[in-house]
Amino acid sequence: LQSGQDHEFIDSFEALHDFEMAQVYAELPVQFRAVAWRLLSIAILATVFDNLAVDEVDIVALLQEMPPQRGAQVLQAMYTDNAVDLLQEMSPRQIATYLSLMPKSEAESARQLINYDDQTAGSLMSTEYLAVKEDLRVDDVMRLVKKQALEAESISYVYVLDRQGLLVGVISLRDLLTHPDNLPVSEITNDRIISVSAGDDQEQVAQIVADYNFLSIPVTDDDQHLLGVITVDDIVDVIDEEAVEDYSGLAAVNVSQINDSPWHSAIKRIPWLIALLLLGMATATVIGSFDELVKQAAILAAFISLITGTAGNAGTQSLALAVRRIAVGSEHSGWQDFLSEVLAGLLVGLATGASVFVIVTIWKHNLILGFAVGIAMMMAILVANLAGYLIPLIIHKIGFDPAVASGPFITTLSDLTSVLIYFNVAQLFISQLSGS
Amino acid sequence: LQSGQDHEFIDSFEALHDFEMAQVYAELPVQFRAVAWRLLSIAILATVFDNLAVDEVDIVALLQEMPPQRGAQVLQAMYTDNAVDLLQEMSPRQIATYLSLMPKSEAESARQLINYDDQTAGSLMSTEYLAVKEDLRVDDVMRLVKKQALEAESISYVYVLDRQGLLVGVISLRDLLTHPDNLPVSEITNDRIISVSAGDDQEQVAQIVADYNFLSIPVTDDDQHLLGVITVDDIVDVIDEEAVEDYSGLAAVNVSQINDSPWHSAIKRIPWLIALLLLGMATATVIGSFDELVKQAAILAAFISLITGTAGNAGTQSLALAVRRIAVGSEHSGWQDFLSEVLAGLLVGLATGASVFVIVTIWKHNLILGFAVGIAMMMAILVANLAGYLIPLIIHKIGFDPAVASGPFITTLSDLTSVLIYFNVAQLFISQLSGS
Repeated sequence: LQSGQDHEFIDSFEALHDFEMAQVYAELPVQFRAVAWRLLSIAILATVFDNLAVDEVDIVALLQEMPPQRGAQVLQAMYTDNAVDLLQEMSPRQIATYLSLMPKSEAESARQLINYDDQTAGSLMSTEYLAVKEDLRVDDVMRLVKKQALEAESISYVYVLDRQGLLVGVISLRDLLTHPDNLPVSEITNDRIISVSAGDDQEQVAQIVADYNFLSIPVTDDDQHLLGVITVDDIVDVIDEEAVEDYSGLAAVNVSQINDSPWHSAIKRIPWLIALLLLGMATATVIGSFDELVKQAAILAAFISLITGTAGNAGTQSLALAVRRIAVGSEHSGWQDFLSEVLAGLLVGLATGASVFVIVTIWKHNLILGFAVGIAMMMAILVANLAGYLIPLIIHKIGFDPAVASGPFITTLSDLTSVLIYFNVAQLFISQLSGS
Repeated sequence: LQSGQDHEFIDSFEALHDFEMAQVYAELPVQFRAVAWRLLSIAILATVFDNLAVDEVDIVALLQEMPPQRGAQVLQAMYTDNAVDLLQEMSPRQIATYLSLMPKSEAESARQLINYDDQTAGSLMSTEYLAVKEDLRVDDVMRLVKKQALEAESISYVYVLDRQGLLVGVISLRDLLTHPDNLPVSEITNDRIISVSAGDDQEQVAQIVADYNFLSIPVTDDDQHLLGVITVDDIVDVIDEEAVEDYSGLAAVNVSQINDSPWHSAIKRIPWLIALLLLGMATATVIGSFDELVKQAAILAAFISLITGTAGNAGTQSLALAVRRIAVGSEHSGWQDFLSEVLAGLLVGLATGASVFVIVTIWKHNLILGFAVGIAMMMAILVANLAGYLIPLIIHKIGFDPAVASGPFITTLSDLTSVLIYFNVAQLFISQLSGS
């Protein structure tokens, strides 16, 4: 970036795809970036910041490399959803600084958007959409589309508002292009609007967009005022984010950052492991309390891990199905659904318990041992299955993400119930088992 | 659907969103559907079938409710990617029947597309794209866009081909709308094309589209011939599908179908559980072989589930991180990466082992026991961590989806290594432990 080569830099930078610009900008050495933000236009800088991922780079630090005035200009030129994401990463003091440098109306609208919860439709929407009055003709609307096309985040749909500014319909650009200029747009306006509320959960919004194959979806308030639009690129990110969350939950480790140092990687695994360890101590205590039983029949120890392991596996399956059922919004918390899960658990328990009975009886030539282990296995699986089913449901009912009920939590909890069941069953048969 | 109300039915059906049409059509009683496919136009029926999900309804049965001639017409009118998905659900005999009823050229192109593997870019692409020669003006291209807009699956980008039909650039509809009519399109053609090959893995394609925020991406052969286009709605489905696969893998149960009957739900869980049970028997055998040790120190039994459980949890974390790392394409299989994982495993093992040492020593007033359990825990965690890291990497290297290495498999395997480590360590200390 020596002088004289400025134009070359600008030209080759602007030839990049938006995503690449952002990657290159973030990876420039800091002293080059100090030149770059002076050379590049506000519009290009806005594109750069629009394409930086908040969770991958320290986007606030990048913005603060510029004087606040320029930073505020970039924020203004960004799509509102991205600008708000960026602002949400800042301290209240920093937010106030930037907002004070923006025009009153923009600052006010940004302030409102910042208040939407991270996981809601409101946090995803941008206010750069195309909207027209209802009494126009196709060519009038096309003129407006052409005029506003550069600012709008998506030009695939034009929203139709009535005199009160309420959303009454939507026109696709495809229909605009394939109908005669003088047609009233009311003829091609679809008034069966599918919209979401600003407070709606982002996962539900993503489901609608995925089902309907929309390229964007409008966000309205209770009176059908159009508040903003969510575009499909944000939906792609939401689906990915939610999947990572569910996956992380099942494994009890956050997998959204995967290129950690060994130190950071260890740090994020240890707290969960220690917490589960404490729960595991309860299981150890239970087994310890049956030490007389173990002394009488050491063979009982051999099946501890078989029973806890298998019940844990069954519980994990049941948990995964329950979390997924809640995620796609098809949970039925009625008795029928519960009974259906009990029945599935019984079937799974019976099949697995019977297998264990046969294997252990033949292997150890001990019918009583096989029977005790088989019965314990069946009961342990049934309980683990129900825990895997009920715990995410309860967590969901009290308003949390069911994905926090991790697989390792369920398996560790089911270890406890499994050994309780196992040793209590074994106790019943101890007179026939002792000495084996 | 009584006679006389036909028009009413058609009108109200066509007023629905495409997705809703498909839902309604699939849920009609079969005798009504027999009337419906006679009333509805081929274009509307094609939209219905375009919007039916192959994995949710028996789409082949729905198509076969019509005479083969009409079915073939619907297939022809569908977007190629969806038509091919549908054909791929059929038997070779059924495929041959439908293709024989199509025009030769269409049948031939469908036959080629059917051969692309389910998980590749080729299976996602449709051939209904907008393409123009390079030496046109903006208004020429807009005329072509308007003419073909109804057939194209996406109108957001127009692809530019040279005289040999090779892909040389892409023009966005936004740029077409915001530039003067008489401008040569070469001025607004982006020649930095991002394209994928037909054989590319769908997950990688999805990653590119997600990163670049594309609305569609071209698929080319090795010579840059344009083969087709993948639209973002298919990418949304891919991301969801891949997430469900990874999640299912981690839990050892297929969660893509969640509204199974108890019977089906049990059937899909049992095979995995029984398979893992057999692996678990190996662990039981190992513990059984140490029964003399257990008789001497029954307290050892108390910590079996603590060690196997905690090591299993650590292995699951490590597995989840490894699978995710491979999924986003950032796996480095070099020594440095391996050492980094060993180091993380050591840190996790040390922290957890030390915690166990402290807890057990204080709780049981037995320094030797605490030391033995702590050391065994540390080693068991290190081994489980490495298994969780290496197994998906190996599976990936030999060409399978690493997600098949399920969490329950890793935990069950780590049960085996954990008890081996535990009892061998305990053996070293047995003279000080016996009697406790």
